[in-house]
Amino acid sequence: MQRVRSDRVASLMGERVTLAGWMHNWRDMGKFGFLILRDGAGTFQAVLSDPVEMEKLRGLQFESVLEVEGLVAPEPRAPTGAELHDCRVTVLSAVMEPLPFEINKKELKAGLDVFLNHAPLGLRHLQRRALFRISAEIMTGYREYLTQNGFVEIQSPKIVGSATESGANVFQIDYFGRPAYLAQSPQFYKQIMVGVFERVFEIGPVFRAEKHSTSRHTNEYVSLDFEMGFIQDHTDVMAMLTETFRHVFDRLGQQRGQELELLGMALPKIGKTIPAMRLREAQQLIYERHGDDCRSEPDLAPQHEAWLCEYSEEHLGSELLFVTHYPTSKRPFYTYPDEADPTLTKGFDLLFRGCEIVTGGQRIHRYPQLLRNAEEWGIDPESIAGYLMAFKYGMPPHGGCAIGLERLVMQLAGLSNLREATLFPRDLERLSP
Amino acid sequence: MQRVRSDRVASLMGERVTLAGWMHNWRDMGKFGFLILRDGAGTFQAVLSDPVEMEKLRGLQFESVLEVEGLVAPEPRAPTGAELHDCRVTVLSAVMEPLPFEINKKELKAGLDVFLNHAPLGLRHLQRRALFRISAEIMTGYREYLTQNGFVEIQSPKIVGSATESGANVFQIDYFGRPAYLAQSPQFYKQIMVGVFERVFEIGPVFRAEKHSTSRHTNEYVSLDFEMGFIQDHTDVMAMLTETFRHVFDRLGQQRGQELELLGMALPKIGKTIPAMRLREAQQLIYERHGDDCRSEPDLAPQHEAWLCEYSEEHLGSELLFVTHYPTSKRPFYTYPDEADPTLTKGFDLLFRGCEIVTGGQRIHRYPQLLRNAEEWGIDPESIAGYLMAFKYGMPPHGGCAIGLERLVMQLAGLSNLREATLFPRDLERLSP
Repeated sequence: MQRVRSDRVASLMGERVTLAGWMHNWRDMGKFGFLILRDGAGTFQAVLSDPVEMEKLRGLQFESVLEVEGLVAPEPRAPTGAELHDCRVTVLSAVMEPLPFEINKKELKAGLDVFLNHAPLGLRHLQRRALFRISAEIMTGYREYLTQNGFVEIQSPKIVGSATESGANVFQIDYFGRPAYLAQSPQFYKQIMVGVFERVFEIGPVFRAEKHSTSRHTNEYVSLDFEMGFIQDHTDVMAMLTETFRHVFDRLGQQRGQELELLGMALPKIGKTIPAMRLREAQQLIYERHGDDCRSEPDLAPQHEAWLCEYSEEHLGSELLFVTHYPTSKRPFYTYPDEADPTLTKGFDLLFRGCEIVTGGQRIHRYPQLLRNAEEWGIDPESIAGYLMAFKYGMPPHGGCAIGLERLVMQLAGLSNLREATLFPRDLERLSP
Repeated sequence: MQRVRSDRVASLMGERVTLAGWMHNWRDMGKFGFLILRDGAGTFQAVLSDPVEMEKLRGLQFESVLEVEGLVAPEPRAPTGAELHDCRVTVLSAVMEPLPFEINKKELKAGLDVFLNHAPLGLRHLQRRALFRISAEIMTGYREYLTQNGFVEIQSPKIVGSATESGANVFQIDYFGRPAYLAQSPQFYKQIMVGVFERVFEIGPVFRAEKHSTSRHTNEYVSLDFEMGFIQDHTDVMAMLTETFRHVFDRLGQQRGQELELLGMALPKIGKTIPAMRLREAQQLIYERHGDDCRSEPDLAPQHEAWLCEYSEEHLGSELLFVTHYPTSKRPFYTYPDEADPTLTKGFDLLFRGCEIVTGGQRIHRYPQLLRNAEEWGIDPESIAGYLMAFKYGMPPHGGCAIGLERLVMQLAGLSNLREATLFPRDLERLSP
């Protein structure tokens, strides 16, 4: 008999159907028992009363995989209005070992380390898996919007021959006896590909050999990159990013209502535009409101980001806030300097609920200027010859940005650690599972 | 003035518009000149007659980036029925160095090495970029079909703690002083995630430290993976794959007609099903038809794949052919053995126009059997504890497959080397660009 997923069962009232899934819960009442089966779509209750069938479940641990054939009967108290009666059970995979924690309660009560050590099990928890359906939907919405706007998807190499994009924090590989490196971002390649397609995007892994261990960093994460040609300046990138987020959040609301509810997740509202302020303005504001004089710092500390987002929400009506014009000295060599003050860049960060989730900006597109900058930053032009080649043979004014997927999900869900928004996180301590 | 892309210009007849793009061609006839501008959408002709404007182009090399403002005028001989008159030119980026090869001719006349060394330029050729639009469309179609069928997208880690999936051919990383490895496939993770979502897919890079250099191998490629739970056997996976390809090819035909034409690319027709034969049958057939006795070999050689595809096209009416039941000894430890003959597996390859483009099959889902197999294959269970955990806590019968994106594109386009279907290939010799 063809298997039916749990979300379709109620539409087959009065028929005999086969469900299959995990033994999410089993309450043995003696003469009968309640089995909750979990499958990819949700959960479904089966009522067992035949002693032969009930016997099959005795001694099995939760998460055993079962096939249950039965009659779809009305049950007003069930979420779908139906349950399964007169059931016959087949055990597909028996679990014999007790679980390290309960995964069938509303909340998962396991410390972060215990959860991460048992991610193959823990991710099955309804809230945990809802989180990664949100991640998947974000990727879908992101691609959809950009594709509709003329962007072409690329897949750039992750093994690279030189480590010079930002110099430090790069993982080294043994590449047939030679050193090679893991790409810290698709930056060079997406810029090169602007020369081919004008507009490109990529979703893929990036690798950062950062030695610090914080709740908002891991050493491998998923980056949502785009890059677009023929812009006036960085504000064109910010506008595209704004509309991309609008589309992503709209889509999440339309497609993932169930998951949003399960996670108690509220989507941010985006006005006509996302408010923006310059770094120096932001720092002045922090100084005036909180007395912390960070006005000559080249960047914002986490506490500053939190304060700015508080301010933005209260006074600008936005949970998202652009901060622009970071100092040239602290941005990569390819960042476009502001003509009005070349010590500042046409670059931006996007803050969301107290944390930076996007970095972007306009890039230098003229070959002589880029070459000069590389040299000033102490980068051997020979080591980035492939990148420079795109500019030697003509590049338009362009810019782009990179969204950290896990950061975005962490902030959406109000998680306290990026690792919770990462399927199988990699950090100083963790290389498995 | 708002910039217009070349494919929209003809709809603005009689208006003044601004185009921007690369100087694809420029023929200076003295009193006037024909400028072909190339942008992300295509090419467009502008006729220059003002000596001041023409002077701006003199001395510039092709691929200079220009903005051209002019009047949209009818021109019956132009592909779009329009061209630009009374033009004013702005040079956005001047190219001063001659190009290493011509990229504005119908065919790109550069040897493979020269092309790959200059990929940032060469990929701009209209045929080359069409190829990577095909790649992008394949990814879109693949995701679309699987999402519609209940698959959830995942992004699994590429840095892994143990190198044991297949043992050899793995790149080692210096992970903060410890050894780590680059994932040869998302195999373990997609299986683990079947325990969470039932059906998952991933598109991402995979890394193979294979020392041989062939026209159909590189050391980093893009793998289109899916994995599905609650199957009867490997034929369920083959059926899902068949329908996925049907959708992908349909979508290519609908969305990428222009690129297919530019590349002279014919899409394969898929019948109700894709024909399948067992490895031993296939080898018998080769022996009978070609006299090559490979009947006890564990795998097919490239020539065998070519012969089988010839046969399939001629006698079975299909350019695609499944070969099933490879020997257990030559497949990974997690491959499901055929109950009727456990020396053979419920695994398959898919051949397309003479080359394997997919490998897949049913996987072992019962914990004791998988544990025993790992040990028999000489794999320390401790080294794959995270993977085994998913099985300890209950896994359904499942299977999946992996499509090599560049292989598929290579075969679709009739290319002789996989590197041509790879944006920036990585092989024994090549780490850049």
